[in-house]
This record gives sequence, structure tokens and C-alpha cells, in this order.
Amino acid sequence: MDGSTDDAVDRLEGRRVEPDGESAHADWRTLQPLDLSPILSAALDAFYETGFHGTSVREIARRVGVTVPALYYHHENKEGLLIALLELSTSDVLSRAHAAAAEGAGDPVRRLANVIEAIVLRMTMRSALAALEGEARYLSPENRQRYRAVRKGIEQLVREIVEEGSATGDFEVDDPAETTRALLGMCQSIPRWYHAEGTLSPEAVAEKYVAIALKTVGARRAPL
Amino acid sequence: MDGSTDDAVDRLEGRRVEPDGESAHADWRTLQPLDLSPILSAALDAFYETGFHGTSVREIARRVGVTVPALYYHHENKEGLLIALLELSTSDVLSRAHAAAAEGAGDPVRRLANVIEAIVLRMTMRSALAALEGEARYLSPENRQRYRAVRKGIEQLVREIVEEGSATGDFEVDDPAETTRALLGMCQSIPRWYHAEGTLSPEAVAEKYVAIALKTVGARRAPL
Repeated sequence: MDGSTDDAVDRLEGRRVEPDGESAHADWRTLQPLDLSPILSAALDAFYETGFHGTSVREIARRVGVTVPALYYHHENKEGLLIALLELSTSDVLSRAHAAAAEGAGDPVRRLANVIEAIVLRMTMRSALAALEGEARYLSPENRQRYRAVRKGIEQLVREIVEEGSATGDFEVDDPAETTRALLGMCQSIPRWYHAEGTLSPEAVAEKYVAIALKTVGARRAPL
Repeated sequence: MDGSTDDAVDRLEGRRVEPDGESAHADWRTLQPLDLSPILSAALDAFYETGFHGTSVREIARRVGVTVPALYYHHENKEGLLIALLELSTSDVLSRAHAAAAEGAGDPVRRLANVIEAIVLRMTMRSALAALEGEARYLSPENRQRYRAVRKGIEQLVREIVEEGSATGDFEVDDPAETTRALLGMCQSIPRWYHAEGTLSPEAVAEKYVAIALKTVGARRAPL
């Protein structure tokens, strides 16, 4: 290992990040750039441009300016990079969504509006990361299972709110589980068109999707 | 070129297909297996398993049992295979959706219900083909433009129905364009979970999504 690689490794060490805790997202509407390590940042760009299977570890190392062994020092393999990015992305949106829901405590209409706003802001402002979710099907069964468990957190949160609003009579929903999936589905599709056709600001898209989501759950009133 | 390759080419020639015309889908609820050529069929499997960028032309040729030059005889390059599959898929769903809408003529609620049913049946029964839409972002700008124009057909059909229903007072929609995208988005996300978690029949999923879609457009009554 030559000197320049050592330097690069040190640099990487200093910039490794952990997913933020929930408490970090009291201001869930503000999305700072994600503090990704240079390796994860390069992997994200490469996966976005050429897909998981179309990206080699060598190409990621080339983008970062490190050797392949230096990269393996930090991540077990290419799949390790994908699962790290997916988990980072999912815990980020999960903690924001929880903070958004907490802010609306006591009013299921406000809670749903806030959570949809948080999800859509992230879909529009972090669309490369959000688009990566489509690559999750290439994970090994074990990692796919692990990732699905994290994703379930979002589904569970939205479903609880949908059920809460049905119980209070604020929503009118026949099938809370499927309605939850439909709500998440409409948000997940945003990265497919947003960069290509989006002339709207992230905030404007969020506002529209909140209105549509409230209609989808048959909300009988506006958020308090 | 040896004899076995010639045989294979003949076999392929005999099985090349054109997308069905609209008239072929009077019975839009019945999805026969798509009559793909062996090359397109192998390309679909390979793209589904390892993504567009993760699949080589050599691998597709190997799956079909032809040489690479034989494959190039039929398709210009790997992107030619992807665009052929995407266009086949999109024209298939477009012609089914048009037939479904036509059957509900005079009643926007029935028209929307039918179109959502047609789209969801195809998402659940042809999920590999439907999932391929996520690979469209890897197309060259020119082909992406061409593909987007075809996809616009579906969006236009759904939007017309949403606007028709708003005009007759059957729907209550603030933003027809965005509501249309949300409706299509919830359907497009189905392939992400259907195979992994689906215990419902395609018909049962379609019924649920019709109910959710009618709520999303604020339908004031059931289909006639």
C-alpha cells in the first residue's frame, strides 16, 4: 500500500458516518446534504448511473481514487455498499417521518399530512438515493430480508396513522393495509419523473401529494 | 455459421411478434402469455435478474442458444432489446387500457375503474415486464424520449377520464395532472412487493386498487 492510498484511507476514516438518530430530525423539513463517506458517495453515483449489476467495485474505487483493496478494507463487497446505502436512506426517511408524525400528535389528519410531506421532500430532494430502492431486488435473500424489515417501519407508521384516523372517524378507509401501500407507492414513483419533468419545487410537489393523500384516505376535514 | 445456428435463426424468425393492435383487446381482462420471440424472452429474464447494465449480449445469446452475430441479425444492440421490450410492454397496456375505457363509455366512474383494473391486472400478471420500466432511465436520451412519448399515452388517457369525471361532477379533484400521476404511481409500485408478499390473486389486488383510486379522485358514486 503506498502513501497516497494511506492518506485516502485516513480521509475516508474521518468521514465515515452513522445514520442519524430520530432526535436529529426535530426539524424534519430541512434536508441537509447527506454526509456520505466518499466511497458511499461514489457508489451511489455509480449505481444511479449504471445500476448495481452494471457497476464494478473497480469503477467505484476509481471514482474515489483509492485502490480496490483499500475499498474492501471498509466494505465487504459490492452488495455491502448497496445495503449500506439502502439502510442509510431508509433510516433517514424513517427518522424524519417519525419526527413529522410526532409533531402532529393528537391529530391523525395532521400526522398523515406531515408524514407524506416528509416522504415527498426526501423523494424529490434525494432522488438518486430514493431511486436506489429499485435495486433492492438484486440483494441476496438474507440482505433483502434485512432491508425489508427496515422498510416495514415506514409502512407500519403510515398504517398506524391510517388506522388511528379511521378509528376517530376522520378518515374513511376500507382497507388500511392496501391504502397504506398505495400511499407509499404514489410517493415512491416520484423519482421516476421528477428530474425529467419536474418544474415544481420539492415543497410544491409535497403540498400536492398531501392533498391527494388526504383524499385517498377519505379525510373528512383539513389538518388542525 | 453452423447448421444449429441457422435452425435457431429460422426458429426465431417464425416467432417474431408485433405488438397487438387495440382491436385485439376487446377482452382486456384476459391476459394470455405474451408471445415474445425467444431472444426478447431471454432478454427479459436476464434484464429482470441482473438489470440492463448487468446483462451482456453474450449472456442473452447463451440463454437463447444462438451466436452473438445471430442475435445482432435481429436487434441492433442491447439497448435495442430493452427499447423493444419497453415498447411492446407499453403498447400492450395502452391497448388494454383503451379497450377497458371504451367499455365504460358514458360513465367516467366506470371508465376509471376499468382502466385501473386493466393496469393492475397487467402489473400483477406481467410483473417482470412491468418492473422493466425502472430500467428506462438507462436508455439513451433519444430512446428515452421516444419511450416517454409512448408512456404519455397512458397518462393522457387517465387524465382525460379524471377531467371528464370532474366536469360531470362525479369526481372531485383539485389537480388532475398530479392526481393522474399519483394514480399511475400507486399502480407502478405494485411489482415491487407483489411477488415477495402477494398472497392475493391479481383480480383481488385490482379490486382493491379500483376502490382506492375512486377514493383518490373523490368519486361521489359507484360505477354504473
